[in-house]
Amino acid sequence: MCTAATYQTKDFYFGRTLDYEFSYGDQIAITPRNYPFSFRHAGEMNTHYAIIGMAHVAGNYPLYYDAINEKGVGMAGLNFVGNAAYADVTSDRDNIAQFEFIPWILSQCATLSEVRTLLERMALVATPFNEQFPLAQLHWIISDKTGSITVESMADGLHIYENPVGVLTNNPPFPQQMFQLNNFMHLSPKQPVNTFSDDLALTAYSRGMGALGLPGDLSSASRFVRVAFTKMNAFSGDSEKESVSQFFHILGSVDQQRGCCEVADGKYEITLYTSCCNVTKGIYYYTTYENHQISAVDMHRENLDGGALICYPVIQGEQINYQN
Amino acid sequence: MCTAATYQTKDFYFGRTLDYEFSYGDQIAITPRNYPFSFRHAGEMNTHYAIIGMAHVAGNYPLYYDAINEKGVGMAGLNFVGNAAYADVTSDRDNIAQFEFIPWILSQCATLSEVRTLLERMALVATPFNEQFPLAQLHWIISDKTGSITVESMADGLHIYENPVGVLTNNPPFPQQMFQLNNFMHLSPKQPVNTFSDDLALTAYSRGMGALGLPGDLSSASRFVRVAFTKMNAFSGDSEKESVSQFFHILGSVDQQRGCCEVADGKYEITLYTSCCNVTKGIYYYTTYENHQISAVDMHRENLDGGALICYPVIQGEQINYQN
Amino acid sequence: MCTAATYQTKDFYFGRTLDYEFSYGDQIAITPRNYPFSFRHAGEMNTHYAIIGMAHVAGNYPLYYDAINEKGVGMAGLNFVGNAAYADVTSDRDNIAQFEFIPWILSQCATLSEVRTLLERMALVATPFNEQFPLAQLHWIISDKTGSITVESMADGLHIYENPVGVLTNNPPFPQQMFQLNNFMHLSPKQPVNTFSDDLALTAYSRGMGALGLPGDLSSASRFVRVAFTKMNAFSGDSEKESVSQFFHILGSVDQQRGCCEVADGKYEITLYTSCCNVTKGIYYYTTYENHQISAVDMHRENLDGGALICYPVIQGEQINYQN
Amino acid sequence: MCTAATYQTKDFYFGRTLDYEFSYGDQIAITPRNYPFSFRHAGEMNTHYAIIGMAHVAGNYPLYYDAINEKGVGMAGLNFVGNAAYADVTSDRDNIAQFEFIPWILSQCATLSEVRTLLERMALVATPFNEQFPLAQLHWIISDKTGSITVESMADGLHIYENPVGVLTNNPPFPQQMFQLNNFMHLSPKQPVNTFSDDLALTAYSRGMGALGLPGDLSSASRFVRVAFTKMNAFSGDSEKESVSQFFHILGSVDQQRGCCEVADGKYEITLYTSCCNVTKGIYYYTTYENHQISAVDMHRENLDGGALICYPVIQGEQINYQN
Repeated sequence: MCTAATYQTKDFYFGRTLDYEFSYGDQIAITPRNYPFSFRHAGEMNTHYAIIGMAHVAGNYPLYYDAINEKGVGMAGLNFVGNAAYADVTSDRDNIAQFEFIPWILSQCATLSEVRTLLERMALVATPFNEQFPLAQLHWIISDKTGSITVESMADGLHIYENPVGVLTNNPPFPQQMFQLNNFMHLSPKQPVNTFSDDLALTAYSRGMGALGLPGDLSSASRFVRVAFTKMNAFSGDSEKESVSQFFHILGSVDQQRGCCEVADGKYEITLYTSCCNVTKGIYYYTTYENHQISAVDMHRENLDGGALICYPVIQGEQINYQN
Repeated sequence: MCTAATYQTKDFYFGRTLDYEFSYGDQIAITPRNYPFSFRHAGEMNTHYAIIGMAHVAGNYPLYYDAINEKGVGMAGLNFVGNAAYADVTSDRDNIAQFEFIPWILSQCATLSEVRTLLERMALVATPFNEQFPLAQLHWIISDKTGSITVESMADGLHIYENPVGVLTNNPPFPQQMFQLNNFMHLSPKQPVNTFSDDLALTAYSRGMGALGLPGDLSSASRFVRVAFTKMNAFSGDSEKESVSQFFHILGSVDQQRGCCEVADGKYEITLYTSCCNVTKGIYYYTTYENHQISAVDMHRENLDGGALICYPVIQGEQINYQN
Repeated sequence: MCTAATYQTKDFYFGRTLDYEFSYGDQIAITPRNYPFSFRHAGEMNTHYAIIGMAHVAGNYPLYYDAINEKGVGMAGLNFVGNAAYADVTSDRDNIAQFEFIPWILSQCATLSEVRTLLERMALVATPFNEQFPLAQLHWIISDKTGSITVESMADGLHIYENPVGVLTNNPPFPQQMFQLNNFMHLSPKQPVNTFSDDLALTAYSRGMGALGLPGDLSSASRFVRVAFTKMNAFSGDSEKESVSQFFHILGSVDQQRGCCEVADGKYEITLYTSCCNVTKGIYYYTTYENHQISAVDMHRENLDGGALICYPVIQGEQINYQN
Repeated sequence: MCTAATYQTKDFYFGRTLDYEFSYGDQIAITPRNYPFSFRHAGEMNTHYAIIGMAHVAGNYPLYYDAINEKGVGMAGLNFVGNAAYADVTSDRDNIAQFEFIPWILSQCATLSEVRTLLERMALVATPFNEQFPLAQLHWIISDKTGSITVESMADGLHIYENPVGVLTNNPPFPQQMFQLNNFMHLSPKQPVNTFSDDLALTAYSRGMGALGLPGDLSSASRFVRVAFTKMNAFSGDSEKESVSQFFHILGSVDQQRGCCEVADGKYEITLYTSCCNVTKGIYYYTTYENHQISAVDMHRENLDGGALICYPVIQGEQINYQN
């Protein structure tokens, strides 16, 4: 399905994998400050913060999978199939269609604190984008350099959870994912110590035995634990290249290899793309399954005061550096 | 430590990760056909098959970590600490110093069958390269498109094992690694079926649950199982780019992220480089920890009839493709 | 902590382990039909169904850990530390003190259906038994031959869950315990089939490999999975002795051996006693940690129309059958 | 299959489970000192140490599954299917038929040291008991209060291993079983400490979480780890009853419940019996699947100077202590 994570060095980084068996056709889309948003139940918004992210652009509208704004807030929607449930439109709330959620937040909020305030009066409603697009069942991670929250709209209402680990995958609901980490609290990047028995000469016969018990499969619960362990213990230099490189290694720990997750006969879910946003600087880095090289689009190299979407294609196919 | 794997599409691919806390300084080294090898106990060899691989070049000698020859044989040495033991020189064997093993095999053998024959009269002896280089404790995987073998020189002699899975990591010895796969025979890329109880409505709440139980840590035994599962179930197109891309995804399943394997206070083992050789075509592809882009050196773009090593530097640092 | 389970052959069986580091002093206590119950907030009850179970008897009051009534309902309270929270007394509910819950249910309900009805208007309140007895943090399983429910009083109210597996341990809350079973749906009493790879000759080298992955530790989540697997796959003859014997084997799968769960220096939690009630016939069977022989008290061998508690001591110490 | 273990308090205890889908018909058999042993290839022995153990008695011959002698040596044979291989008769060895191995050792050896000496010149040969009894594929644990050894006769010869953990199950061979314990060295009876991340408030939500990762299934490799952990951490008083009780709890950790190990349609392997010998005092305690009460036969209550086997039946069926 998908995995999102944050990472802090000198700058703040936010990104995700998008795992699926096919792509809807994506672009790196920059929404400049004067692109007019027309919310279905919440009116018009003609000026706002600029946004960059990965989107399926339909009818000139950026259906973002994940994005950041120029102020330092990142947000991603991840599959939450079987658990997501959206509200009906009511008069006493900001009624935001599920597909508008990322624009709604990123266009207005400069900090996670402002996000929390905005969410207090918001309802996520089931208004679809159009008839061709089924309503995606999603939940979201929203982050800035001070922390992360998770938003889950379920049958029993809208839940907003503090997300101290700064990662998100898919099912089960976030509180259960966090709770499961307790079962792995003994994992460590250091070698294990023999507490089995003082009377047996047990030894670490390999490096890396401190995390024995870490799950290695591709289910959402296992990816949550694995990426949490990797991210919480990750260590890198704080230069831009070192930070970005390390971020892709963190999400690489939950890469879905073609063949390992068969969703129908001969159809395989893979990590279609992996993104890493420098939230501080407004740069969108990404790789795709078929292109290990990191590509980048920098929002600040564009005129952010425009009114039209600026789109860059996703570079596909291995870009190999032939040395001879 | 390290992981090696093979992969077959239209061509045959062979590669490995090299995991350690620092690099000795490596180059992609091509040994042309007329580079003179002077074996310590086995005489001179002035013409031989050309070889390309990753090496630490010391005193003009290619100390290969992994390499292939122009005939289609690949070979890699991986750490085998605590188990490797080398023989004394005896008169009735080909006495090959441990550091000469890769050149000895790749310079002479066009097929795995020829390798097997050569090994019958060979002893791996403890002669060091020089006083500065401690004797590495290694075992080896040798492969061509027909299969793989593993060679382990231990206190009880030289062991040559068929390697039906075509992967190798480190400890414990290879027969135990293979045996452990039996404990994971129920893993599958397909979703699990409820065999726990007909009377309980258990469900797969996430994709990818068929491999629940696959280990996710970085120990050598866990990497063996994980890369074996990934490789045996890997599926890709058979073009060069698709094959190479998929190969890096396979070895990516055992990538060692900086921070997750602490070998001393603040010192971390990481995947220094990952290689993928097109054994059929003689092309050496690689990535490094700090450079996700795939680089390549093609042996057939050089004059292979020369007598001097041809070396290319390892490209370090992220090579980012800025789209704007 | 504790584990409860049900089992159905010709008769219906219900029982539990009680795990702790010391005993409060227990007796098998029969509450006959005319023993007067004086509920703290729910009035007097002078005639009711007869009850048998394990209790700490304090001031002539049976503080039951687990019990059954003469009509075929069984009920047990198990530790739920950190999650249990009781309500304040309110005027619109049956306010039942936590320690009165088992008598309240078993004295009035002949079926699980009647239990459900009674629970609709009940609140579990925090009134303590007396000053010496701290309020136990518990949750409950209530069962008859048609099924089981779990009752959890938490900060967000009283939860009543269908319990299709008919087992209960401790933390986390019941819905999470049930959910975790999904992660084990592939376990089986049958040998595993090789789905890892068609190209590897993997084999089952031992009997019993179909349940590889079943947790073996003593934590409450692991005991839940283990006893669920054991109970759902248990098979026995349906005679009284075979049924009772099998029941003790089921709960034996979560026996806590002294030494394996150290709760303070040199203090170990053990399975103080294990009970197995023939709910159909009103017989209370049990073993203790130090007495493997099954002892039994039959409520129908007493005058159930009396007004005074009938208590039998717990037989302690191994009762060994010396054959010579 | 089977599990054997030792336990030391004031006295030395040795016992095993025998797991199978049916019984051959067993008795507690005492071989007195003057019972004549006629070894197939090793001559007559008319006086020897007295032996007590569980045996199938065929033609007045005690085919022991497990036994102890009056001097303090215990020995048990456990299934080793697919790995056991016996030698041909040769002139330079003590040729002992596999079925004679327990009598051969226990009749002559007063200590484990004497056992080691005797094994130096012994070969285990494939001579069958008779045509009806197929050659059992076994390996053995031999113990006295100073330690244990494991004996495995395989295609590559007779192996004698020190057994520091004092337990044995079945496949794979003993060195692999011991090696696997390294993977569990971090298990502990104490609660885990959070080493996952200093920045996450992970907690132990249940007692007994220190052994998370301990396998709970019935395969021989999992039983080895589980019983090793239980035995090495077991703690009890040192009186006879407390020691015996604790020993049955240790082996209870690997009890095979009917239904959890299906060996053919509707056929289940169960723990047919569990034994616990006080090796110091010559008392054979046991339980059976259908009888939880401990029964006992004391060799020293018999005339050990006799020449005829003394047999006691295995008490079957629950011996319930009805208190009313």
